[in-house]
Amino acid sequence: MSTKKLNLGIAGLGRGFSVMLPALTLNPMINILAATDLRRSALDRFENDFDGKAYTSLQSMCSDDRLDAIYIATPHQFHIDHVTLAAGMGKHILVEKPMAITIDECTAMIKAARNAGVYLVVGHSHSFDTPIKKTQQIIEAETLGKLKMITALNYTDFLYRPRRPEEFVTAMGGGVVFSQGSHQVDIVRLLAGGRGESVYAAIGDWDENRPADGAYTALIKFADGVFANISYNGYGRFDTDQFTGWISESGIAKDPDNYGVARRSLEKINNDNAEILLKDSRAYGGESSVSIPTSNYMKNRYYEHFGSLIVSCTRGDINPLPDRIDLYGDQKKTEILKPPTFPRAEVFEELYDAVFKGIEPLHNGEWGRANLEMCLAIIKSAENGKEIKLKYQVPAKG
Amino acid sequence: MSTKKLNLGIAGLGRGFSVMLPALTLNPMINILAATDLRRSALDRFENDFDGKAYTSLQSMCSDDRLDAIYIATPHQFHIDHVTLAAGMGKHILVEKPMAITIDECTAMIKAARNAGVYLVVGHSHSFDTPIKKTQQIIEAETLGKLKMITALNYTDFLYRPRRPEEFVTAMGGGVVFSQGSHQVDIVRLLAGGRGESVYAAIGDWDENRPADGAYTALIKFADGVFANISYNGYGRFDTDQFTGWISESGIAKDPDNYGVARRSLEKINNDNAEILLKDSRAYGGESSVSIPTSNYMKNRYYEHFGSLIVSCTRGDINPLPDRIDLYGDQKKTEILKPPTFPRAEVFEELYDAVFKGIEPLHNGEWGRANLEMCLAIIKSAENGKEIKLKYQVPAKG
Repeated sequence: MSTKKLNLGIAGLGRGFSVMLPALTLNPMINILAATDLRRSALDRFENDFDGKAYTSLQSMCSDDRLDAIYIATPHQFHIDHVTLAAGMGKHILVEKPMAITIDECTAMIKAARNAGVYLVVGHSHSFDTPIKKTQQIIEAETLGKLKMITALNYTDFLYRPRRPEEFVTAMGGGVVFSQGSHQVDIVRLLAGGRGESVYAAIGDWDENRPADGAYTALIKFADGVFANISYNGYGRFDTDQFTGWISESGIAKDPDNYGVARRSLEKINNDNAEILLKDSRAYGGESSVSIPTSNYMKNRYYEHFGSLIVSCTRGDINPLPDRIDLYGDQKKTEILKPPTFPRAEVFEELYDAVFKGIEPLHNGEWGRANLEMCLAIIKSAENGKEIKLKYQVPAKG
Repeated sequence: MSTKKLNLGIAGLGRGFSVMLPALTLNPMINILAATDLRRSALDRFENDFDGKAYTSLQSMCSDDRLDAIYIATPHQFHIDHVTLAAGMGKHILVEKPMAITIDECTAMIKAARNAGVYLVVGHSHSFDTPIKKTQQIIEAETLGKLKMITALNYTDFLYRPRRPEEFVTAMGGGVVFSQGSHQVDIVRLLAGGRGESVYAAIGDWDENRPADGAYTALIKFADGVFANISYNGYGRFDTDQFTGWISESGIAKDPDNYGVARRSLEKINNDNAEILLKDSRAYGGESSVSIPTSNYMKNRYYEHFGSLIVSCTRGDINPLPDRIDLYGDQKKTEILKPPTFPRAEVFEELYDAVFKGIEPLHNGEWGRANLEMCLAIIKSAENGKEIKLKYQVPAKG
């Protein structure tokens, strides 16, 4: 592996960045040199933590010649402007999912990157996770025959994490379909080869105190009769982590007895403003924000995951888990996975290989647009009760 | 409880009867007085086991004035003729699910029973199971608010149990949609109040050695935005009993290490005829058939179940299990269930109450027809890619 490092600027030091922090700081291939955010407290902390340069605008940060790429982790609805700007200034881009909230925005972002000759990677999303990639390889090798059926379930407390008001508004990219559906469609598309044919879905919205798309189930059809059911419930009751050995989404052991913790935290506050303050306090630079992880962070750390996944092929089923892959062929076998060396290495490998080796990323703009198309189809089908045909699907290049 | 017993005649001593045997013999409310079957070996054993009367035709058995009711456990495609005959001869009827394989047949059976003034109960099916009934009561009482979403998963080895050739042919009532879908739709209909509005589905058929409907996923919509996903896979790989504490469908502990047992048994035989012989040898009266259970049968016995079921209401989720019900409300609570005194007591209670107390059964002909309508809609939707509207749905009277 080359010793050349990727020099990165961060656009947006909010929740996405906080979750990405261990991946950014523990990865030896990355230099974090600059950041921009609207919150001065976040920039101050950034300068302190990273000895990096704080910019008050994306435009000024993109003028920093040292930077190879920008990690855009601003709220969904700003992705279009920020990607267009950064691409226009010649920076390669890693943009958080969902890539955008309309197909036209995705198309504009793809064009902006292509015209500027820069690479666009959409991530992190959970199809990057090593157990998913291994599952894809098993499918491609037809070790257990051809893929036929996927069942994906995730029951989380998504809706009770602190939120800004617009995070409940579907038209602004809020709700679980955009934020969480984008993971599930990303996973099943990767496993099924990428090209979905149609989507049929239903959406649930049932907490009057937090009106939003809070749950869904969708049936996705692929070529050759392959189908997937993806179901998601963000209301913080039943927890599907019991189906993945009580390992949390971020790959660390979870206490089954700590039931309802997100909802209980929220109950202590009673208005939107207080909730924003809570969210801000947890955001990078806030009073209760995460600290910079040490190498100790990886102790007892498994791969990230996005719920329970049962993958059925003609001669056996595959059940990827955070620490292993269970293979139900003629015999049952278990492939224990070597634990991750640092989190989300797969994302930065893809970005690195694009920037320095010219390898087109799997999770490029077209891939992200196809994911968004599926999310939009879930919303549309739930509204009109019809099977929605897909038009922007692309094959997985993995 | 009355001490009057229900005098029962059995039509068909095959697999359905074998599975029902413990329920029939351990239940003190039932007298088994007569049986009919095409196999002389089965009749011989019946006479020996029950000191009962063996008939060579259903017609002659129905002339037996002692009998209050007939349990019809013949293959699906014969239900229409056998129900019509028994009803016409004034016998109350318990008929196995699926009630029939066309709507017209169901309608004819409903009319035959009504014209004859006899009750028609369709069962056993898994909505009879006590944990399901308890869940329905929790929903009705709105203990955790209003029902919104149901996820039902069942991965079994259905396709590798010994079969007659017609059990693979959908048009003859074969495949998992008729045999197993009838359980899942029965359960979600009971929980959601009975009246489905539409069905959208996909079906998988991927073992070339056993071509049949072997797996499906379906999205069912009910009134008020309630929706259910039911997914089933009968290819004997991943086993959802790991989500129900390794308790088998029949309510007894299962050895997780005994992976693939059904497929391995089948591998020893290599043609249709040998498979029929194997099936016959296991059928009542055959060499390897089940013995009459003793009271010891109920030791360490839990309730029957039909896979994993997550029921989401506005204020919490319900997860019925063979030994308990987990309630995920503001707190997590567990309701431990008193173990069953004898198996499938609920079925015979419903039949008994109809015959002796004139109480219209919940699982009557109209209920069974509505279940069949959903199964047929799964098959039709999988063929034409459309949402199928339902017309024969009826409310749950529970």
